Amino acid sequence: MNEFELIKNYFQKLSKKNSSSLKLNDDVFFDKKNKLVVSVDTYVEGYHFFNFDKPDLVIKKILRSSISDLICKGVKPKYYFISASGNKKTFSKSNLFKINKSLNEEQNKYKIFLSGGDTIFSNKLSFSITTIGISNHIIYRNRAKINDDIYVTGNLGDGYMGLLAIKNKIKLNNSLKKYFINKYYMPEIQYKLIFKLKSFANTSIDISDGVITDLEKMINFQKFSYKLNLKHIPISNNLKKIINIKKLKKINFISNGDDYQILFTASKNKRRIIKNIALKNRIKITNIGKIQSINKKSSIVNEKNIKIMLKNKGYIHEFN
Amino acid sequence: MNEFELIKNYFQKLSKKNSSSLKLNDDVFFDKKNKLVVSVDTYVEGYHFFNFDKPDLVIKKILRSSISDLICKGVKPKYYFISASGNKKTFSKSNLFKINKSLNEEQNKYKIFLSGGDTIFSNKLSFSITTIGISNHIIYRNRAKINDDIYVTGNLGDGYMGLLAIKNKIKLNNSLKKYFINKYYMPEIQYKLIFKLKSFANTSIDISDGVITDLEKMINFQKFSYKLNLKHIPISNNLKKIINIKKLKKINFISNGDDYQILFTASKNKRRIIKNIALKNRIKITNIGKIQSINKKSSIVNEKNIKIMLKNKGYIHEFN
Repeated sequence: MNEFELIKNYFQKLSKKNSSSLKLNDDVFFDKKNKLVVSVDTYVEGYHFFNFDKPDLVIKKILRSSISDLICKGVKPKYYFISASGNKKTFSKSNLFKINKSLNEEQNKYKIFLSGGDTIFSNKLSFSITTIGISNHIIYRNRAKINDDIYVTGNLGDGYMGLLAIKNKIKLNNSLKKYFINKYYMPEIQYKLIFKLKSFANTSIDISDGVITDLEKMINFQKFSYKLNLKHIPISNNLKKIINIKKLKKINFISNGDDYQILFTASKNKRRIIKNIALKNRIKITNIGKIQSINKKSSIVNEKNIKIMLKNKGYIHEFN
Repeated sequence: MNEFELIKNYFQKLSKKNSSSLKLNDDVFFDKKNKLVVSVDTYVEGYHFFNFDKPDLVIKKILRSSISDLICKGVKPKYYFISASGNKKTFSKSNLFKINKSLNEEQNKYKIFLSGGDTIFSNKLSFSITTIGISNHIIYRNRAKINDDIYVTGNLGDGYMGLLAIKNKIKLNNSLKKYFINKYYMPEIQYKLIFKLKSFANTSIDISDGVITDLEKMINFQKFSYKLNLKHIPISNNLKKIINIKKLKKINFISNGDDYQILFTASKNKRRIIKNIALKNRIKITNIGKIQSINKKSSIVNEKNIKIMLKNKGYIHEFN
């Protein structure tokens, strides 16, 4: 049973009397009447972050991952709450100093405020972050329209390469290693797009588990399929270089997560406005495919326009 | 360093730019402008609940503990979010069925709605619960007035006796064992008092760590002291019986937590209204002492009006 089945079988019914929960089928909770947008996420050592050797960086990663859930829906995050479970080592003075410093930097960067939480003694290190925004609208999941363009912001794959570098599963020179590890720990969140997204996006999600998995999540109740062009999926020059030198496969990098870029669809008549906003704000926004009728199968075509199969669509949380 | 020092030294500064956080020195977060009240709590196996042999009961306990944080401040809880970290056994179909059933029962009893959360694979079992209410007021901490009466709702000590029974640290007959264990897992939350509290309470808190610890928390920034009368502190007839038979000390039971009753102070001129509300709603509300000038030392007097000392004031979460 994976997490989707678990939610569907055991928890969806509990949320049904409450339309704001969006049937637990969106990235956020939205109470329109009270303008309340909430996201809750838990991060466990060895699972959502590799280890806690760099507490300053781990804190930045998980906080950005949390606010990304609101930002991708066009909502400005305002308050955050952290529940930290850890042991004496986790809460050592040196670590607390680093955690404090990182939180302070992120607060200033993203104009968010620590608003509460708690600290719990446990040998298993984990953090649960609640992020709240005040907004009278969100961009929902499952609102794609047929023939919509599919877009992604920024570059994909750097985060996954960073994870491989941290795990020493790939050899890189020091400068590249640093580049990718920084991308893993400090993903570039598209803060500047928050209030602009709603002017063109029909539906949106952030990419935490890989572009394929998150695309399918984004339209999972819609009877649509998609076509993605692998060659259009944007990757950084650094990643391009490594992939060429080491003869790696691009598809493996873009179908893993940790990038926190925004995936969205928009009608064709929005192409000009998207291009203008991208230029004006110096944000990379790339058209990577389109939404199609369910009569056509979902597909990814490679550089030679040949359909490719994916062994691993990305990360689905399996329990048994 | 205990949790108060940890918050004071490392996190309070981060919350200062944001008055709604109440300097992280209250049970809840309160954004008056947006009528938003939030409480976040984490519960770890072996720490906040004994074990997960009875998932149906553990879920009730932690959910009631969470909503108690809002109820004691005069705020109706509306939405809750659960992040559950556990292993395959935790998320077995049988356990999920029981968790679902309990959540459903609690939702109906307390008119709250599951609104989101997540499930995480981890060998350490823990739950983080975010509870949200919509309210334009709360009853704050640190608003006691000199000469205020100190009150407590319901009975204290049954929860701690229940914990001793679960741990087999005390021998009880089956019917008493069941009574106390039920009190531990399903504390009586004073839901009926939510909207009445503000008509008489100057300041309030719920008793999770013991009446002394929580009383001191409630007035921790005020230069006041207190006097408590041990004989007035209400305990159930069942607890009275066991304490007498086994020659136990009442003070040890009321100074431990797990009761989730409301502790509050009120001016003397509210005595009649409190008595009337208690009678009308069939809720036990007991005057257990008073707030005094800091010139007098805080004290607890026993049945013979002799001051007693406490070895253990209750539960303070120690990290090192």
